[in-house]
Amino acid sequence: MLYSQRMAQLSKALWKAVEKDWQQWIKPFGLNINEHHILWIAAHLKGATISEVAKFGVMHVSTAFNFSKKLEERGYLSFSKREDDKRSTYVEVTEQGHGLLLEINNHYFDTEHSVLEGSLPVRQLYGRFPEFIELMAVIRNIYGEDFMNIFEEGFRNMEQLYGKEAQAERAADAGEAEVQSIEEKDEVS
Amino acid sequence: MLYSQRMAQLSKALWKAVEKDWQQWIKPFGLNINEHHILWIAAHLKGATISEVAKFGVMHVSTAFNFSKKLEERGYLSFSKREDDKRSTYVEVTEQGHGLLLEINNHYFDTEHSVLEGSLPVRQLYGRFPEFIELMAVIRNIYGEDFMNIFEEGFRNMEQLYGKEAQAERAADAGEAEVQSIEEKDEVS
Repeated sequence: MLYSQRMAQLSKALWKAVEKDWQQWIKPFGLNINEHHILWIAAHLKGATISEVAKFGVMHVSTAFNFSKKLEERGYLSFSKREDDKRSTYVEVTEQGHGLLLEINNHYFDTEHSVLEGSLPVRQLYGRFPEFIELMAVIRNIYGEDFMNIFEEGFRNMEQLYGKEAQAERAADAGEAEVQSIEEKDEVS
Repeated sequence: MLYSQRMAQLSKALWKAVEKDWQQWIKPFGLNINEHHILWIAAHLKGATISEVAKFGVMHVSTAFNFSKKLEERGYLSFSKREDDKRSTYVEVTEQGHGLLLEINNHYFDTEHSVLEGSLPVRQLYGRFPEFIELMAVIRNIYGEDFMNIFEEGFRNMEQLYGKEAQAERAADAGEAEVQSIEEKDEVS
């Protein structure tokens, strides 16, 4: 029970910090956390059913549905049915929605991110951001393999997306261009 | 930013699981999470100011104050001013409040605790519950030394409290009584 209360305390403190950072970040764009969360889940899964959005977003199906509808009204999401599965409602991010997400990402550093800043000393010490492997194990046990798969898939898609952007940025940087081309040669050979 | 979104996802999943476990546990006792949280903070700090409750409970001062007032109306908390600091409102758990907390604790195993269960495989593997030292470091950086001190102080008080209870239980158990007395002799010598 002591362990549970410790976890309650820790997870509340962490989530409240995350929530505050998140709210401040997206506030100028007229979205709430649920709407932004749905939008990025749909984007990173390259389309998703409402139940996938709800599961991955850890929200009620009705919450996922209602906020998705609002995003559709504003032109950021489109609803559809799949030929092979007429029962599930499918959402996809529209071009306008992708534009908004990119715009939001571009303004990431306009606001304070206490969780990121709080993690920097750990990165300084270990050379990388904390990976929370124990925490990942606990969450895997609670939410199951499915949840972790969607989780990893989403982040792989993101890494590809941002990896390319980062590569392009690096390529544009004259000082790094040479290193880049050497790396590319290494990859070819 | 990837790291932030990963943290957002992880902390939301963890907190939603904690919240659900917690709600189910205390539901029969007519308290909400904030009220129960305030009550155990006040108990484990052996009395606290409203601002300590708010800080340690990661809630607004007005939330801490309003729910404390409700707990006072129901006879679980008492309000007072300290002679040496007339500006701060001090709350203490009444006898009735301690009774309620004990009652709630005694019914801990009546409901499911997914976070505890999700952590058992980690304990099985390592012989102890995960300690989340990276996570503790991040939270220390966000909330500061004060927060961690209150955190540790609260848990030390709890451990003392439950340590004594556990000892008493062990002493009552005939099979363990002998071991107990040997341990006590060891401590004396």
